[in-house]
Amino acid sequence: MSGFVSFVGSGPGDPELLTLKAVDRLKRAEAVLFDDLSSGPILEHASPECDLVGVGKRAGRPSPKQDHVSQLLVDYAQSGARVVRLKSGDSGIFGRLEEEIDALRAAGIEFEIIPGVTSACAAAAAAQIPLTRRMMARRVQFVTGHDVAGALPGDLHLQSLADPGATTVLFMSKRTFPALAEKLFDTGLRRDCPALLAENVSHPDQTLLRTTMEDLATLLAQDITGAPGLILFGELAESP
Amino acid sequence: MSGFVSFVGSGPGDPELLTLKAVDRLKRAEAVLFDDLSSGPILEHASPECDLVGVGKRAGRPSPKQDHVSQLLVDYAQSGARVVRLKSGDSGIFGRLEEEIDALRAAGIEFEIIPGVTSACAAAAAAQIPLTRRMMARRVQFVTGHDVAGALPGDLHLQSLADPGATTVLFMSKRTFPALAEKLFDTGLRRDCPALLAENVSHPDQTLLRTTMEDLATLLAQDITGAPGLILFGELAESP
Repeated sequence: MSGFVSFVGSGPGDPELLTLKAVDRLKRAEAVLFDDLSSGPILEHASPECDLVGVGKRAGRPSPKQDHVSQLLVDYAQSGARVVRLKSGDSGIFGRLEEEIDALRAAGIEFEIIPGVTSACAAAAAAQIPLTRRMMARRVQFVTGHDVAGALPGDLHLQSLADPGATTVLFMSKRTFPALAEKLFDTGLRRDCPALLAENVSHPDQTLLRTTMEDLATLLAQDITGAPGLILFGELAESP
Repeated sequence: MSGFVSFVGSGPGDPELLTLKAVDRLKRAEAVLFDDLSSGPILEHASPECDLVGVGKRAGRPSPKQDHVSQLLVDYAQSGARVVRLKSGDSGIFGRLEEEIDALRAAGIEFEIIPGVTSACAAAAAAQIPLTRRMMARRVQFVTGHDVAGALPGDLHLQSLADPGATTVLFMSKRTFPALAEKLFDTGLRRDCPALLAENVSHPDQTLLRTTMEDLATLLAQDITGAPGLILFGELAESP
């Protein structure tokens, strides 16, 4: 008796940005393992008999051990349950998906991955910024400036990030942004390159701050309190 | 009397990958302007009274003039209609969104952008590949290898694309892939770097080919017939 796991991207947080397929899987789930960021009204799609299990991780707070989450997932599936593993945004993008997949494969448990709306796309949409532009911005990249210890990774490909022809979205990078910005200026990025800080993307208390790389670095060096946020930069960040 | 335009990302094609918000906007639309790739069952959410207007563009075929599409959008909105501009995937990613936004702004027409599931995330999900990995793949990038004339753009940032620490998804690039692959090999990318060709992503006739950069370049130099496809490459493309 072996269960089945659906990894479901819940989108950026607005319950209306769930896909129809995500809603279907939630309705049919016997257990839902969710992170803090994807909780709330989204879970109301689950049936009253469904087990709702919070395995929250939040930026800046200690995370539960990843192998604990993977083990819980395996345990629920091995009980024969139809399990939804809900992850915010799209589960393939900075969702630590691989570690959980590996655990399921090792235990011989079948799974599917249902893509979701990534918060990078939602932030750009909220700011009415396209992420690409013909001729001028043919590349968009999503990067995390946060390693396992919460520090700026030492092996970031700075040439890629300083390329003026790209639009870049930084995930989980408020804390390390001032140090990263200095490295990018040294690599040739304009100090006045347009930047956008988007917090609580798609939630009712969403905020959007349009600024420049240099001013944002100054701001975040003084104050990184507040909500989890995405930082988007590149020439397109200044439109309209 | 001025209408309102909702840019709606329809996702990669599977009607179940529409968001709840996309369905809501389709139901309430008085006119839907759609591309070929986002047609079919998705349009069944629109009411019987709604005008359905195909403004199709397809890779490899001549496109209708972009300014014609923008003018049509303005005309419908100025008639007072509630208009949905449906775009496949997420409209902010290679959706030529900016040109249509500019036309609406010039005409003083209000609009919103509803993000969707990008086909890059859907392709990775179908292949059960995460797009990022802690420590090893902290950057994911979406690129088009197709300029206005359908040729390989001359100004691609090859260092970014040859970075072994990134996962790359190429949009609309089957035709130019052999030439691009040669440039990337010259820039240091491994010839046997894992690559995935995903065609008809999320449709019933979806195909996934797991191969290497070199073998895919050989294949596409001989035959680029078949469906529109995405090419995903990087170390993660070989998992599991």
